Amino acid sequence: MTKRKICVVVGSRANYSSIKSAMRAIQDHPALELQLIVAASAVLDRYGSVVNLIEKDGFRPHARVTMLIEGETPATMAKSTGLGLIELPTLFEQLGPDVVLTVGDRFETMATTLAAAYMNIPVAHTMGGEVSGTIDESIRHAVTKFAHIHFPASQGAAERIIKLGELPRHVHMVGCPRIDLVAEILGRSSGGLDAGLFDLGVGQQFSVDEPFALVSQHPVTTEYGTGEAQITLTLEAVREQGLAAIVLWPNADAGSDDISRGIRKWRERKLDDRMHFFKNLPIETYVNLMRSAACLVGNSSSGIREGAYIGTPVVNIGTRQHMRDRGDNVIDVGYDKKQISDAIARQVEHGRYAMDPIYGDGTAGTKIADILVTERVDVQKCITY
Amino acid sequence: MTKRKICVVVGSRANYSSIKSAMRAIQDHPALELQLIVAASAVLDRYGSVVNLIEKDGFRPHARVTMLIEGETPATMAKSTGLGLIELPTLFEQLGPDVVLTVGDRFETMATTLAAAYMNIPVAHTMGGEVSGTIDESIRHAVTKFAHIHFPASQGAAERIIKLGELPRHVHMVGCPRIDLVAEILGRSSGGLDAGLFDLGVGQQFSVDEPFALVSQHPVTTEYGTGEAQITLTLEAVREQGLAAIVLWPNADAGSDDISRGIRKWRERKLDDRMHFFKNLPIETYVNLMRSAACLVGNSSSGIREGAYIGTPVVNIGTRQHMRDRGDNVIDVGYDKKQISDAIARQVEHGRYAMDPIYGDGTAGTKIADILVTERVDVQKCITY
Amino acid sequence: MTKRKICVVVGSRANYSSIKSAMRAIQDHPALELQLIVAASAVLDRYGSVVNLIEKDGFRPHARVTMLIEGETPATMAKSTGLGLIELPTLFEQLGPDVVLTVGDRFETMATTLAAAYMNIPVAHTMGGEVSGTIDESIRHAVTKFAHIHFPASQGAAERIIKLGELPRHVHMVGCPRIDLVAEILGRSSGGLDAGLFDLGVGQQFSVDEPFALVSQHPVTTEYGTGEAQITLTLEAVREQGLAAIVLWPNADAGSDDISRGIRKWRERKLDDRMHFFKNLPIETYVNLMRSAACLVGNSSSGIREGAYIGTPVVNIGTRQHMRDRGDNVIDVGYDKKQISDAIARQVEHGRYAMDPIYGDGTAGTKIADILVTERVDVQKCITY
Amino acid sequence: MTKRKICVVVGSRANYSSIKSAMRAIQDHPALELQLIVAASAVLDRYGSVVNLIEKDGFRPHARVTMLIEGETPATMAKSTGLGLIELPTLFEQLGPDVVLTVGDRFETMATTLAAAYMNIPVAHTMGGEVSGTIDESIRHAVTKFAHIHFPASQGAAERIIKLGELPRHVHMVGCPRIDLVAEILGRSSGGLDAGLFDLGVGQQFSVDEPFALVSQHPVTTEYGTGEAQITLTLEAVREQGLAAIVLWPNADAGSDDISRGIRKWRERKLDDRMHFFKNLPIETYVNLMRSAACLVGNSSSGIREGAYIGTPVVNIGTRQHMRDRGDNVIDVGYDKKQISDAIARQVEHGRYAMDPIYGDGTAGTKIADILVTERVDVQKCITY
Repeated sequence: MTKRKICVVVGSRANYSSIKSAMRAIQDHPALELQLIVAASAVLDRYGSVVNLIEKDGFRPHARVTMLIEGETPATMAKSTGLGLIELPTLFEQLGPDVVLTVGDRFETMATTLAAAYMNIPVAHTMGGEVSGTIDESIRHAVTKFAHIHFPASQGAAERIIKLGELPRHVHMVGCPRIDLVAEILGRSSGGLDAGLFDLGVGQQFSVDEPFALVSQHPVTTEYGTGEAQITLTLEAVREQGLAAIVLWPNADAGSDDISRGIRKWRERKLDDRMHFFKNLPIETYVNLMRSAACLVGNSSSGIREGAYIGTPVVNIGTRQHMRDRGDNVIDVGYDKKQISDAIARQVEHGRYAMDPIYGDGTAGTKIADILVTERVDVQKCITY
Repeated sequence: MTKRKICVVVGSRANYSSIKSAMRAIQDHPALELQLIVAASAVLDRYGSVVNLIEKDGFRPHARVTMLIEGETPATMAKSTGLGLIELPTLFEQLGPDVVLTVGDRFETMATTLAAAYMNIPVAHTMGGEVSGTIDESIRHAVTKFAHIHFPASQGAAERIIKLGELPRHVHMVGCPRIDLVAEILGRSSGGLDAGLFDLGVGQQFSVDEPFALVSQHPVTTEYGTGEAQITLTLEAVREQGLAAIVLWPNADAGSDDISRGIRKWRERKLDDRMHFFKNLPIETYVNLMRSAACLVGNSSSGIREGAYIGTPVVNIGTRQHMRDRGDNVIDVGYDKKQISDAIARQVEHGRYAMDPIYGDGTAGTKIADILVTERVDVQKCITY
Repeated sequence: MTKRKICVVVGSRANYSSIKSAMRAIQDHPALELQLIVAASAVLDRYGSVVNLIEKDGFRPHARVTMLIEGETPATMAKSTGLGLIELPTLFEQLGPDVVLTVGDRFETMATTLAAAYMNIPVAHTMGGEVSGTIDESIRHAVTKFAHIHFPASQGAAERIIKLGELPRHVHMVGCPRIDLVAEILGRSSGGLDAGLFDLGVGQQFSVDEPFALVSQHPVTTEYGTGEAQITLTLEAVREQGLAAIVLWPNADAGSDDISRGIRKWRERKLDDRMHFFKNLPIETYVNLMRSAACLVGNSSSGIREGAYIGTPVVNIGTRQHMRDRGDNVIDVGYDKKQISDAIARQVEHGRYAMDPIYGDGTAGTKIADILVTERVDVQKCITY
Repeated sequence: MTKRKICVVVGSRANYSSIKSAMRAIQDHPALELQLIVAASAVLDRYGSVVNLIEKDGFRPHARVTMLIEGETPATMAKSTGLGLIELPTLFEQLGPDVVLTVGDRFETMATTLAAAYMNIPVAHTMGGEVSGTIDESIRHAVTKFAHIHFPASQGAAERIIKLGELPRHVHMVGCPRIDLVAEILGRSSGGLDAGLFDLGVGQQFSVDEPFALVSQHPVTTEYGTGEAQITLTLEAVREQGLAAIVLWPNADAGSDDISRGIRKWRERKLDDRMHFFKNLPIETYVNLMRSAACLVGNSSSGIREGAYIGTPVVNIGTRQHMRDRGDNVIDVGYDKKQISDAIARQVEHGRYAMDPIYGDGTAGTKIADILVTERVDVQKCITY
């Protein structure tokens, strides 16, 4: 029997943890063949060479595509999408996939989707139908309009995809594959933080037995130019609450430089006496930090998604996660030091929340693989109304 | 007072006639400044150097962007989109437009929209919300999900845009700017066909006083590879009905080569004794042909759109115009010689239909300009459900 | 033993016949592995899908790269080079060749060479050191300055490469691999023209027993815009001499459209009553035409190169082959109808010349393969003076 | 009178100081018009936004082109060249320059040269004919083979250009425009270092009255992967000699990441107690550092070029400046700690050298402008032998 060829394009560290459990399930399935292209920040040293991690995990990339144009401005993000669109068709032609499986709402996702859809290759899409801020909001729904098979991560998302005019029979609520990894990590580890935590990253050490914040704040592309002020407010609020903190550098997106500059200036002002900074954390470490932290502060979707499952108290700042379905563990605040500070205080006092399976129960990857074995689509899409 | 800068990217002959009346209204408006980029097939000799026509009409292009990659396969269409995405950001940065106005559902439209949206420039979109076949169907709705201001051409389209989760206050049913040109041409000309008609193009001459068919059939990208058979069926049906014909070569899209090969073989088989072939027709001539033809046969949207206004009897073949809102002047048939032939016979017998303003009344251009003067949008989009 | 991996990038029909005998020798050599990328006009339908021919000849392309940007202007030629530079590195990384072998002086050659040289992959180059007109003249010498191993086709070319500061020990005069094919064809065929000759192409038929001209005239990129006048003069001179003619369409380069327009207009003026036109000829047919023709007229390098070996009388027009080493079979003339016409008359009277092995004796391919087995280079180049 | 339009493409900080005096002379000349495109690292924040400096100096960029693909590997350098080749033709078409003036031997230079040469725009080139290591060696001579007007910076370089087959009448030995800036700075400043020197950059402060080293070491693209070891040896030697040091981060090239990693690890090992690190220095500061430093250590061309004029003692390491014409102020050593350390000791003991005008006397810019007014070239190049 010929195996169905499923091609996955992984473009970043976050991308990878969002699809890894599905990749594994596809690779292990007797009726499926996994084809893998690694691209964008996932092939770059500066972002921790995720491609090496991918290979260590037992996957074999067919090609590595550098496609990030330096600058990380809105304009270079568009141009990087263009580069992807130029290179991916040649690679898809080499591979001849039956389905291209794409993840989320980043610019690599857009390039992957457009290339496949133009080439009449059915597109399967995870994490569609969610609502958020930044250009991701538009990318996500546009990708839905190109995709043929939908794997939303929550019930609300599934309903939204159908409202967008997609055929209900191709919309499969499977949960988020990231939660699969989280469940696995929570299952196997005691939850204690690694002794060697502070060996990586830069900055100060502190005792993780005392309460500490986990800060993860990314640029909002549609508010380009304001990132430096935004991260500074956040760091001030954390400091005001007397918390030590693990601070993550922002991911590669238009405006990353602004956030990074804010962090660098903070460090130059020597305000980081109880802070430690990481560029890239293994997801295992990150999940354990989410379990241990008194509070996650920032605008990462992980607070809302993984946070719901882990029960992490979250202070979600600003517009980036606007309207994304969320559980009780999240307090939303604006770009305002007092609001942020007060919310941190409340969350530290509250402590850990109960588990909420809003974004899945840890079985998304195998569900995706199973559906991909049998699902047949008409490559010609047609709106339902 | 500073004028609002409205940037239009024109990528093909069809594009140009779909936006020309709006361009003129913008250029003439005291509160607006027109910025123009001419790209893709509109700058190519092989497609009749539309850019020269644009300049003759009094517009001044800021830049000319060659971005069509040869091959006209699905893969090169994706790559051409990529080229546009690489070049347009540099030009948008030079121009600093307040709004980018984009047209329809072609790959240039996708590139223009993505570049502007990533760069946080509000996007206005004409002809959204319609339904059709080919990849255009997906492009059109994806562009809607990026666009901030919508100028649908029909009531049904406007309703569909709102169902797609767009804000009703930014959806303006203005009609189709192409109808503006049609109305103008019908108004000023007697309708008789130009004596010099057969000086252009290649093939045989015939008397236009006898009934003749106008054949305009384009590739369906999602049925890539079947174009040669499709056009051959059409030409056979026309011949079976004993009609002379004006036959248009297909436009630049994945699969054009297939259609062209079909036409070339038809000619080599000497079956074209009463047929004349055109690469590019001035819109004035085309409208007059639509008025004079006994029947338009093929899958051009013009049969459905302009045809409604002009009253042209249309035999619409196959999936390309699937579900597009249409008037009584259209008979839909499959890729089947007998069906096509019978429908031609019925339409020739019926003769011209009454005017139906389903796609506008000839005032779309000025309406668009007026709205662009005052419309203010939030660059951060958000789905309404 | 590990085989040395030799990667060849074939970008056009002419490219292919210039390297085919070397490809075969590499593929057949026990110590070498052939890696093949097919690109540019060689993957296009419009240029006769050379890639299909390549596969029929028993070669397996690793990838097919569409990289021709439509327009065939000087600007699009530059942009096409850019596209090649974007895609080839990803493919070279997949293949990991020990040597990249590149051919001649076209823009694909430039892209291939730059990509490999930047990536520290040793570059071997055939047909360097020759002299000609057009941008090819600059490309050829620039490629020499990047190349590590040189396979010039004539003694004069070898000397020129050394004067350019290259290391003599890496300059190997092997002759031109095209001559290998010519020798093979001359060896096996009787030289009579195929009965089915006129089944292909378009235009009139004539008796090939009477004297006829073979016209092959290509654009001169540095004289962009003058091609229509140039080809018209040539056709007029042929007609003045009362010769029937086989006329080839120009190859894909900046200015091709001008030449093509000249030919189309000639045909529309019905001056082609004894002319037949071909887009693409199998090299076997072409060589036999060169053997049978009373005279080759135009500016193709084949007149000078293969013509010397075959003994074809050649009228070489204008600057395109300026200063290229040539034998007695060539009369050079300017863009002047009388000069061209007189020279045709002299050549028709003279008849076939004796064989002159200036461009090789038919063993270039095996020599190239043998040298590639053992040649070791320093990837860091250094001028010798 | 129509001014001759001279278009300069500036791609990096080093590029800018290498052409600034010529830009000023062109801008000030009544018969010339300066057209400016700023590209590559010169538009990036991460490299100090040279474009802002350019504007502060009174120049007006026509366009800003982001074209650096992240990764800084040999492959991305090739792809970045490709991006430049895709965008520059559109901009050259907007500007219609009479001459494109390009600088040195970087990948932006290659893209600029290729784009202009393909488009039949005469190319003028500064700093050709020199000899060095890395891929620059090949780029430089390849650019010479495309260029029509040559402005070498030394007598030896001029002779080499002529040996490469260029027409002597288009080879003008004008000296290096960088020396113009150096002469100006030396003329106006006392030579004392700015009090605020240590306000910028990161690291430790030290007294600049004591002897200190200036370390400037860049990747050698043809030795890709060895940069970390190379810089480490250098820093160890400096430390062994007991010198404080100003250390510059490497410029953007394949392998920068390796050097940067070496520096970062050095700092993490806390070996930097008397070192201060700069990303970008204003040229004024840099020249004054070269005047004050006890020794310049590394492989920057500035040691050889500006160093000759200033009299800076230089320890030049490795292959990057291989064979470049040099004065008495340079001691060449291999990648060997002892050799480097000993040479530093000798140079510190020797102290400043006498001025040597081998790379010009400070008048290159005006000479270039004057020649560009009258020089006329044949766009068709032809080798002289």
